[in-house]
Amino acid sequence: MVRQAVLVLALIIVAAKLGGELLGRLGQPPVLGELLMGVLLGNLGLFGITALEPLRDSAMLRVVAEIGAILLLFEVGVESDLLQLLAVGWSSLAVATLGVIAPMILGYVVSSQLLPEAGWLTHLFVGGTLTATSVGITARVLKDLGKANTKEARIILGAAVADDVIGLVVLAVVSGLVTAAMASGGGGAGSVGWGSILWIVVKAALFLTLAVVVGRFWSQRIFVHAAKLQVPGVLVGLCLCFCFVVSAISGFVGLAPIVGAFAAGVVLEEVHYQPFRERGERKVEELLFPITTLIVPVFFVMMGFRVDLKSFASPAVLGFAALITVVAVAGKQICGLGVLERGVDRLVIGVGMIPRGEVGLIFAGMGSTLVLAGKPILSPTTFSALVLMIMLTTFITPPLLKVVFERR
Amino acid sequence: MVRQAVLVLALIIVAAKLGGELLGRLGQPPVLGELLMGVLLGNLGLFGITALEPLRDSAMLRVVAEIGAILLLFEVGVESDLLQLLAVGWSSLAVATLGVIAPMILGYVVSSQLLPEAGWLTHLFVGGTLTATSVGITARVLKDLGKANTKEARIILGAAVADDVIGLVVLAVVSGLVTAAMASGGGGAGSVGWGSILWIVVKAALFLTLAVVVGRFWSQRIFVHAAKLQVPGVLVGLCLCFCFVVSAISGFVGLAPIVGAFAAGVVLEEVHYQPFRERGERKVEELLFPITTLIVPVFFVMMGFRVDLKSFASPAVLGFAALITVVAVAGKQICGLGVLERGVDRLVIGVGMIPRGEVGLIFAGMGSTLVLAGKPILSPTTFSALVLMIMLTTFITPPLLKVVFERR
Repeated sequence: MVRQAVLVLALIIVAAKLGGELLGRLGQPPVLGELLMGVLLGNLGLFGITALEPLRDSAMLRVVAEIGAILLLFEVGVESDLLQLLAVGWSSLAVATLGVIAPMILGYVVSSQLLPEAGWLTHLFVGGTLTATSVGITARVLKDLGKANTKEARIILGAAVADDVIGLVVLAVVSGLVTAAMASGGGGAGSVGWGSILWIVVKAALFLTLAVVVGRFWSQRIFVHAAKLQVPGVLVGLCLCFCFVVSAISGFVGLAPIVGAFAAGVVLEEVHYQPFRERGERKVEELLFPITTLIVPVFFVMMGFRVDLKSFASPAVLGFAALITVVAVAGKQICGLGVLERGVDRLVIGVGMIPRGEVGLIFAGMGSTLVLAGKPILSPTTFSALVLMIMLTTFITPPLLKVVFERR
Repeated sequence: MVRQAVLVLALIIVAAKLGGELLGRLGQPPVLGELLMGVLLGNLGLFGITALEPLRDSAMLRVVAEIGAILLLFEVGVESDLLQLLAVGWSSLAVATLGVIAPMILGYVVSSQLLPEAGWLTHLFVGGTLTATSVGITARVLKDLGKANTKEARIILGAAVADDVIGLVVLAVVSGLVTAAMASGGGGAGSVGWGSILWIVVKAALFLTLAVVVGRFWSQRIFVHAAKLQVPGVLVGLCLCFCFVVSAISGFVGLAPIVGAFAAGVVLEEVHYQPFRERGERKVEELLFPITTLIVPVFFVMMGFRVDLKSFASPAVLGFAALITVVAVAGKQICGLGVLERGVDRLVIGVGMIPRGEVGLIFAGMGSTLVLAGKPILSPTTFSALVLMIMLTTFITPPLLKVVFERR
């Protein structure tokens, strides 16, 4: 048992690092390499190699991948500062809101036209996958272009953070709707009333507010007391436990665990663990790094693993993927209208918001595991098409952004 | 699924750190606190709390605990230097050899007298659990007493490292014997001939030699090439993969995976990853710390979890535990005879070798999971008695060592 487990982990880590390196050298974000390596490993069956097929149904690997997503969102939360989030300019907020609403509507429409047999929850998941801009990928590209300090970059990054948060709230609402539909007998997606929708929105808002307010208050106190412990590893252990407990709570109230993980990360600030820093411990980001660098790629590799290349042999699926990609790009171009300042290149803003990433993948992954009336919300082919869209939007952004920046 | 998993992990981490802190303040090694917390959590049923009972049979938790043991032995291997190991004085080697042979024989005799219904493999496992001195616990106690630089301390530490290695070889042979007995139909323990014993000894010796020689050669080359990769996390990823692959190989050739993990750790030396250090990466020990500080305690807590306090209600079990503890202490007193130098306090040597620890627990844990002819090699009560012995030897060493050092 343990032999297979460690070999699989070693294989995934090697694949992730090699894939990341390869794509990094091609000027692409490493996360794309992890996805591509996953696609490769998951489709070895095409070459007659079936040794990895059992991984497809491994409950253990699924849990590890989900913990990877939880740690990723926690890390993103730790790196984003609550005050900075609140101080994000009105432009960023407007850009973000437009950038969520437009792709959501467009995605819903495309999905309901091309997948008429699916329920409205499916269309909602397709739309939801299109909403969130990838902070990580955008930031990395802007930095690589040496444009991280332009006004455009600041607006894009602020908006990307904001629409990650909005995306998480959307995810909380949508997954709450599915849970509610499942609880009401699972008898089709139509059985969720406006009352329960409202209740989920209120619950999500309440949870996030409480997590941030109560979490901030408590985390400070807990850290002060924990700093009195002398046993090694208290800081990193405490941070992870904090993340795990808040995400479990968010799971128990019917929201996605990653929502709680992000909230936990946002709450945690360096002042809280100042006593640990004073006795020479490293920063939380540094302590988390060896853990996240190993577990987070499991999530991306396994997401790629689940892409079924054979499904792209169907023109219908390819057409859906192509159309949803066009919609993903077009939907974010409206963002430029949200900019209030003068002298800002609105095209740059629109292009900079194109890449979808972690949150989109989490959306798609969740949609493909939630089962309603015996069928997954997102069928395997729809899932594959959405992952392809996420990869394509990420692939085209770096060269496109370079072109529009240089055009001026 | 993932909600329960993260909650359980958080619970184990909090319990481990609190237990470690508590025992640390009482002047005991923190690992004892982790064991005790595990005993507490595993016996909550006595107080009518049964919420944690499902953890007893969790395959996932068992794999995580085993990975914890693998990482622990890897870490011990990384911290011990091959050349230092080879340069260990003859005194240390003699002390170690005597300290393995005497407890092994005494343990075998006690087990065969008190557990007449069990097979000879059971006696071998009981004896084996008594062999290895805990390097970690001994080193910690000597350091706390401020005696880490005495001649006695150097001999004890050298011998503790040496008999950990000897203990691992014994474990390799004993677990190989069980595998061989299982392969030969599992029809009782008597079915293993001298031929297969010899084959296992040869295999263990061959594997360790090959792992060290080939591993050393290859690890250097792999690290030089890997250092050309620019994606973050290559060093820690590579180290873990190296550890995982070597331990899987050791599992596949019929040895315990931890044997391979230790070999991998010994092989890995700072010169190999010098190129990484030069570009400012931290030492492997530091990179491993956040991971081991979270996963290794899972192993100890789960070992304690499996101790059934109810079994100690039987005078026979308590008697067995008491006798095996006496034998564990007495068996190491012969060690003093192995000292070749003059002016060394032989009583200090004998007392310093008393604590059993990680390798003993791994022995006991493996014996309780290996099943032969439908029964585990070590019954739950025998397992509990052995864990009690390990805890007792560890508890008595710090005060005893203080007394014998101050007596002079």
